[in-house]
Amino acid sequence: MLTIADVTAAVNPAERGGERLARAAAEAFAARGFHGTTTRDVAAAAGLSPAAVYVHHRSKEELLAALSFEGHRRVLALVLDAVAAGDDPVEQLGGLAEAFARHHATEHVSARVVNYELAALSEAHRAEVSALRHEIEAAVRDVVRRGVAVGVFSTPDPDLTAAALLSLGIDLARWWRPGGRWSPDEVAAHYRGLALAMLGA
Amino acid sequence: MLTIADVTAAVNPAERGGERLARAAAEAFAARGFHGTTTRDVAAAAGLSPAAVYVHHRSKEELLAALSFEGHRRVLALVLDAVAAGDDPVEQLGGLAEAFARHHATEHVSARVVNYELAALSEAHRAEVSALRHEIEAAVRDVVRRGVAVGVFSTPDPDLTAAALLSLGIDLARWWRPGGRWSPDEVAAHYRGLALAMLGA
Repeated sequence: MLTIADVTAAVNPAERGGERLARAAAEAFAARGFHGTTTRDVAAAAGLSPAAVYVHHRSKEELLAALSFEGHRRVLALVLDAVAAGDDPVEQLGGLAEAFARHHATEHVSARVVNYELAALSEAHRAEVSALRHEIEAAVRDVVRRGVAVGVFSTPDPDLTAAALLSLGIDLARWWRPGGRWSPDEVAAHYRGLALAMLGA
Repeated sequence: MLTIADVTAAVNPAERGGERLARAAAEAFAARGFHGTTTRDVAAAAGLSPAAVYVHHRSKEELLAALSFEGHRRVLALVLDAVAAGDDPVEQLGGLAEAFARHHATEHVSARVVNYELAALSEAHRAEVSALRHEIEAAVRDVVRRGVAVGVFSTPDPDLTAAALLSLGIDLARWWRPGGRWSPDEVAAHYRGLALAMLGA
């Protein structure tokens, strides 16, 4: 089973083949789905031989798991950073909504794989990814609950509103594309406002 | 190429095999993706022979197109119904958000296929589905713009807020599952409130 250290090594920019492979895999999985993509497809897209893929990953599923770990770790980091940036739930949630939206627009290709291919992970990898998702969800929920507790937020169901806040950002990976009407920064700034409006702040 | 009439015939409940096939295909495509599913998989899940599938659909892609047309037509109908229910943008948008959320929770299996497999459609079918999506998006955008124009809504970017409103509902297909914490009606009622809050109503 992969560990966080394996993932970090696999996507280390110093490791040329690994980086190219990760990007090619994300693009292939995003375009045709995990089950519709062969290891050979990924190798060809990365300009590597199929054998070279196995130097980096023991299976196609381990390649997916590496992408999934990396994507979830980055999102957890940006969520925790936003929370750590202050004490005021309004500022924390505003920053979180902004960073979360920017990430899902900028990284829309890998974010599609990260969010829509969970069912393709092995049971053990899915459990690890679920733990990361629970940490992300809990961090968002905690800011919302704290804002309600101190009276700066108002919502009849803090936990369902927290789930809806995550939806706003995640769904950008489905529809946002570069060259469209809004830049990632424009989306991020607008989504900060929407998130605070959803909480009556 | 399929027409709306073909689709209606294909999913007509009076036509037993066709209905079973549509449900089996939606479940298979939602679980493993269009490219990860064979016609044989769908036939087996529906309790039919692979040859029987071809009685209903000339290809796996036509089966996907039938599901996609039907799903989009149902969503367009519920959006237009909500708009036709009154003159007040607050009531129209509230009803729309509620019906849209209820649909994407209740029909979460087929809604995943409808929203996440657009790239697998043939160019001609994708163009037809895009036309339906544009009608859905335009209807939501028009209610938002009208509410801003008459002063009952307030948002710095009506069109981006309309896109975000659609995201809220669509992303339910990704995360909502039966037996979870919230029923479709609970989600729908809460999402009505969130939608109106996003518009400062």
